[in-house]
Amino acid sequence: MSFNTFGHLFRVTTFGESHGPAIGGVIDGCPPNIRFTLADVQAALDRRRPGQSRFTTQRREPDEVKILSGTLPTEDGGLITTGTPIALLIENVDQRSKDYSEIAASYRPGHADYAYDVKYGIRDHRGGGRSSARETAVRVAAGAIAAKVLSGVTIRGALVGMGEIDIDRDRWDWDEIGRNPFFCPDAEAAGRMENYLDGIRKSGSSVGAVLEVVAEGIPAGLGAPLYGKLDADLAAALMSINAVKGVEIGEGFASARLTGEQNADEMRMGNDGKPIFLANHAGGILGGISTGQPIVVRFAVKPTSSILTPRQTVTRHGENAEIFTKGRHDPCVGIRAVPVGEAMVACVMADHLLRHRGQTGDNTSWPFPR
Amino acid sequence: MSFNTFGHLFRVTTFGESHGPAIGGVIDGCPPNIRFTLADVQAALDRRRPGQSRFTTQRREPDEVKILSGTLPTEDGGLITTGTPIALLIENVDQRSKDYSEIAASYRPGHADYAYDVKYGIRDHRGGGRSSARETAVRVAAGAIAAKVLSGVTIRGALVGMGEIDIDRDRWDWDEIGRNPFFCPDAEAAGRMENYLDGIRKSGSSVGAVLEVVAEGIPAGLGAPLYGKLDADLAAALMSINAVKGVEIGEGFASARLTGEQNADEMRMGNDGKPIFLANHAGGILGGISTGQPIVVRFAVKPTSSILTPRQTVTRHGENAEIFTKGRHDPCVGIRAVPVGEAMVACVMADHLLRHRGQTGDNTSWPFPR
Amino acid sequence: MSFNTFGHLFRVTTFGESHGPAIGGVIDGCPPNIRFTLADVQAALDRRRPGQSRFTTQRREPDEVKILSGTLPTEDGGLITTGTPIALLIENVDQRSKDYSEIAASYRPGHADYAYDVKYGIRDHRGGGRSSARETAVRVAAGAIAAKVLSGVTIRGALVGMGEIDIDRDRWDWDEIGRNPFFCPDAEAAGRMENYLDGIRKSGSSVGAVLEVVAEGIPAGLGAPLYGKLDADLAAALMSINAVKGVEIGEGFASARLTGEQNADEMRMGNDGKPIFLANHAGGILGGISTGQPIVVRFAVKPTSSILTPRQTVTRHGENAEIFTKGRHDPCVGIRAVPVGEAMVACVMADHLLRHRGQTGDNTSWPFPR
Amino acid sequence: MSFNTFGHLFRVTTFGESHGPAIGGVIDGCPPNIRFTLADVQAALDRRRPGQSRFTTQRREPDEVKILSGTLPTEDGGLITTGTPIALLIENVDQRSKDYSEIAASYRPGHADYAYDVKYGIRDHRGGGRSSARETAVRVAAGAIAAKVLSGVTIRGALVGMGEIDIDRDRWDWDEIGRNPFFCPDAEAAGRMENYLDGIRKSGSSVGAVLEVVAEGIPAGLGAPLYGKLDADLAAALMSINAVKGVEIGEGFASARLTGEQNADEMRMGNDGKPIFLANHAGGILGGISTGQPIVVRFAVKPTSSILTPRQTVTRHGENAEIFTKGRHDPCVGIRAVPVGEAMVACVMADHLLRHRGQTGDNTSWPFPR
Repeated sequence: MSFNTFGHLFRVTTFGESHGPAIGGVIDGCPPNIRFTLADVQAALDRRRPGQSRFTTQRREPDEVKILSGTLPTEDGGLITTGTPIALLIENVDQRSKDYSEIAASYRPGHADYAYDVKYGIRDHRGGGRSSARETAVRVAAGAIAAKVLSGVTIRGALVGMGEIDIDRDRWDWDEIGRNPFFCPDAEAAGRMENYLDGIRKSGSSVGAVLEVVAEGIPAGLGAPLYGKLDADLAAALMSINAVKGVEIGEGFASARLTGEQNADEMRMGNDGKPIFLANHAGGILGGISTGQPIVVRFAVKPTSSILTPRQTVTRHGENAEIFTKGRHDPCVGIRAVPVGEAMVACVMADHLLRHRGQTGDNTSWPFPR
Repeated sequence: MSFNTFGHLFRVTTFGESHGPAIGGVIDGCPPNIRFTLADVQAALDRRRPGQSRFTTQRREPDEVKILSGTLPTEDGGLITTGTPIALLIENVDQRSKDYSEIAASYRPGHADYAYDVKYGIRDHRGGGRSSARETAVRVAAGAIAAKVLSGVTIRGALVGMGEIDIDRDRWDWDEIGRNPFFCPDAEAAGRMENYLDGIRKSGSSVGAVLEVVAEGIPAGLGAPLYGKLDADLAAALMSINAVKGVEIGEGFASARLTGEQNADEMRMGNDGKPIFLANHAGGILGGISTGQPIVVRFAVKPTSSILTPRQTVTRHGENAEIFTKGRHDPCVGIRAVPVGEAMVACVMADHLLRHRGQTGDNTSWPFPR
Repeated sequence: MSFNTFGHLFRVTTFGESHGPAIGGVIDGCPPNIRFTLADVQAALDRRRPGQSRFTTQRREPDEVKILSGTLPTEDGGLITTGTPIALLIENVDQRSKDYSEIAASYRPGHADYAYDVKYGIRDHRGGGRSSARETAVRVAAGAIAAKVLSGVTIRGALVGMGEIDIDRDRWDWDEIGRNPFFCPDAEAAGRMENYLDGIRKSGSSVGAVLEVVAEGIPAGLGAPLYGKLDADLAAALMSINAVKGVEIGEGFASARLTGEQNADEMRMGNDGKPIFLANHAGGILGGISTGQPIVVRFAVKPTSSILTPRQTVTRHGENAEIFTKGRHDPCVGIRAVPVGEAMVACVMADHLLRHRGQTGDNTSWPFPR
Repeated sequence: MSFNTFGHLFRVTTFGESHGPAIGGVIDGCPPNIRFTLADVQAALDRRRPGQSRFTTQRREPDEVKILSGTLPTEDGGLITTGTPIALLIENVDQRSKDYSEIAASYRPGHADYAYDVKYGIRDHRGGGRSSARETAVRVAAGAIAAKVLSGVTIRGALVGMGEIDIDRDRWDWDEIGRNPFFCPDAEAAGRMENYLDGIRKSGSSVGAVLEVVAEGIPAGLGAPLYGKLDADLAAALMSINAVKGVEIGEGFASARLTGEQNADEMRMGNDGKPIFLANHAGGILGGISTGQPIVVRFAVKPTSSILTPRQTVTRHGENAEIFTKGRHDPCVGIRAVPVGEAMVACVMADHLLRHRGQTGDNTSWPFPR
């Protein structure tokens, strides 16, 4: 991927630092005549917005998105895309004027501070600068528009593990996602997470999480055999989110423990003349191409690096030091990564939909070869 | 990534099917004046070459690479790059003329057969066509040249898990890699794998594997903050290898279980004026940028889909059927993925080296900011 | 080139329509530690700004640029780049609320109206939408930053022909550029252009122009042999400007009339150990690579399509109609294309500088091979 | 454009030097199910092949193309694309073992020798290496396949000027193209060119040419507003051909002399419900998007730089010298550029066809907006 752009036909470029005047982005290549409303985009942003429970950073950002180009107003108060680039702008409001001199001088372990300084020789340290999770708001806004391109497709994410607590997949209920502050589909696990994360939060510590995104309704045929594999682009897209350290498709790492017999998703003819898969170990992708089954992706988010416990570090000037991070932080940054993951999956799918119909001329999937 | 190209400045494009006349590729953007020998490339290919033990497919391919462009001969019998595109050609020799009519008609579960047919409406089914692992030979050849661009860097891969057997990291010995047919760094585990895989092989089954690649000597500063994150490009590159279902960096999925304290790689000043990290949970990458620590990547390879046990499937014509795969296959295709993973890491690192010095003008890393 | 992005390492993406809330863009891949001031960018914009003489559209736009990201303030009131994306924003102020219903319904000959409607099935017709010359303000702002990357390089443009009037190259004086409203380097021709264009303007007509951009101080070695030829990228960049219909390098079309003897730029050794070219028919580029001579590019701008004389056309609904364009327009849109051409050349050169040092590791040119 | 790749969805990468073992390329992204024959490709190559008249280089190259991948044989002896990368290989046969020591040491004026050496510090000087016109054979082969993607489209090129001789457009007859060795559509001018070029050839000199390519049948709607303008991509594609120094669309540079009234292509409704343009000054492109009129592009080719008359130059070692080029050369390299220009136009059009249907989902053009 380019430095700050991803996608091939449906392309998203983002910009902005945590404490600059604004963050934003440009969607290029969006099909024309796609209808959406600002409220659609805002609703997506609100799911990611900080400060909605005690488990996310208390930074207060309205995250109000402005669309500067690429659309026309519709008669019913909505917007319609024109095929030209769509610019998104979100102003930074709550750039609390705190003292950042310490993190300007010392490298926070687990943060990008040192790496940025070595790479660029200069760094906007305020609030993490470009590496702030704040940038993900733009991804969510772009994903909301990508989702409109994918008519008939449902993309939903869930938190399936937090620190030591895993969900029980037998209790999976998508409706639970909206009933707890963790996007957790298992009500019982969500209850335990609440206590667990309160403890983490009060001790000024943090913890990681595993998230899962499922895309249903993706037609068979999207993707490409090798370097343009659907799973390769999904992996890059998810790994590009701050703090993500692992990505897997379908069985993922567990597939290493399976035999060929166990891993084979057998097929039968359905009554509607379409094939039915008897399992989905593949996570909806074979040979880099979608099979028509749900696309299932998981990714791991490391614990927030900003913690209250002092850690050993060095300064810009080559001296040993200790550092701990005051300020507002998510005890589990993975929670808010759920809508971000959904957005990235939506953008990748929209891109591959356009690429597929570009190469093949087909707008729809079909059960069997022409 | 594009359909069949990866990389931004050091770009690799591959072509070829399992049973066509040849496979090959083009490296574009390679720096000039890089010296290498055909023997260097051949040695890398030989590590991946099938038929070297009873645990890999018995297809006999000499995998002799020809270099058609982009180099000049040197006085000592080697080659030197000129900066123009380097074309690699490997002829297919052992395209055994077997009967492929069954897999032409029926979709093998776990294979890309169905997905290809839906996408393209046409498919070269002989030996898997484009989806054959044979394509990875070109990656290995390209990686051997990328490795020459990365002077001072050592990139090594190992198999760290096969089916139910995991290695013991305390017994890790890089020298063991060459002493067993599995690229396994744990001699004791390798012994158990031999018995285990013999059983799998004799029963006509297959099994998955987990591989790890470590790049040492990568200077701090390679990569980019977000969409061009070093880990995003590594994830895409590894996920683009056939049968790979998961990728993780450093602690990877295990980081979800850690606290911020556990995950922080603390720093101290070294005697040489360079910072020392006290741990490497990050796997050598923070904020998408290399830290100067070893880059550590793991990826999961699913079991070979070609198995002797009949599986339920459907035909091109929409009928239920059963299928099993005769022919020559790897009982654990993950084994030969070790040199492929090394090659992909080398290509990504070479690309990011060029990108970094393009943007910043620096040829070297340095311990502290300018 | 992508839809709305150009460049490979120094990448510029633009967005915005004539009558939307704002236009803007994102520069990605800019080197860090480049110092510039808002005043530098504003000065470049002011050269392109409309309403400065009676020969440009009377639309009143302050063209005040805001920089939203990618820089830090310096102690002396300037800015310094951090290596992250630089977002540029220019608000649209004077979107005069005129009646656009006629051009919404009828296709103006010579305009993009019909082509947009066929392509997208929808069109922002107000002020020309995306096809408005207003977009070029963003190019100029980006070019001002690109120019800072190119230390030691001077890039200057001039109008060398307008309608029937050509300059006399023997009278070329760069100082004249700023003394007439045409960026014309020939004072005598500028005087005649003034009368000529007054006539064109008063009759509600328009006329085309030929512009020339010269880049001095470009080191030898930038570019690439074939598809990445410096002249190929220059041609695309200049042709991407509204209303440009032709591009040529050095002798350009005139080279077709030359013999090999006439066209050869002979070389002699200079006293400083560097080669001297005895002519510059090549326009500073041979084989796609800069030679160290000045880069010389010319491009032709067609007459403004908006004219007062009624022209035959058809409506969106398939009826014959007549149309003429009221409103504010440039009688010679080519005049304001001079700073736009300079900006595009600057962006292409900055991109190739980064690409060259990425591939070769060299920061400087040198007179003879290593 | 990348170094050696062009196109966005229909992508062509080429490799190879004049005196290496082979030249070739890879077409990536070609739609599946496109039927063609090797004879189609060969016929295109034969038009470009040297040695067919006394007016082209006497190098004898059969230019026999091999297709290594991406196709399957059809029952009628043809080929059908599978959607995977198509590799093209053309072996170099007549690499006459002449003495190249002089051009290894001295830079030929007008050639890329010096620029290559400065850029790369190394150069394959034999026959011009990568800068040899030999590379264009691959473009022609790729263009032959692109042409098959463009069903219903006719792309034809012609030589419209050679040195001092211009054609008379009133005598334009496409049938004449095949009746003279110059691809000249004006029989009378072709006769004069024969005498003229004989004189040039016998004196060991060379001369430039102007070529025109016309694409008929391109539907309205291909292209994109700004950086992805159809004309921008055409300009880059044609400028990427060796020795090309200028490109223009429609009226091109002549449009600078026109008024808005003269330049407006007025429209009337046709009897079939489609609009008719009353002129084609625009060359079939407005605002970067095709209008449905014929696309008309012209490009200028400079005189062959290899001439018999000694020219002043310098050596690699910084000494003054004289050089003249023995060996086999085209007295007017522009002649053979006709099929190359056609091929580049075909590739650009195929790419934009795929991009257009990718973004908009439309496979066909239509007269009026949806």
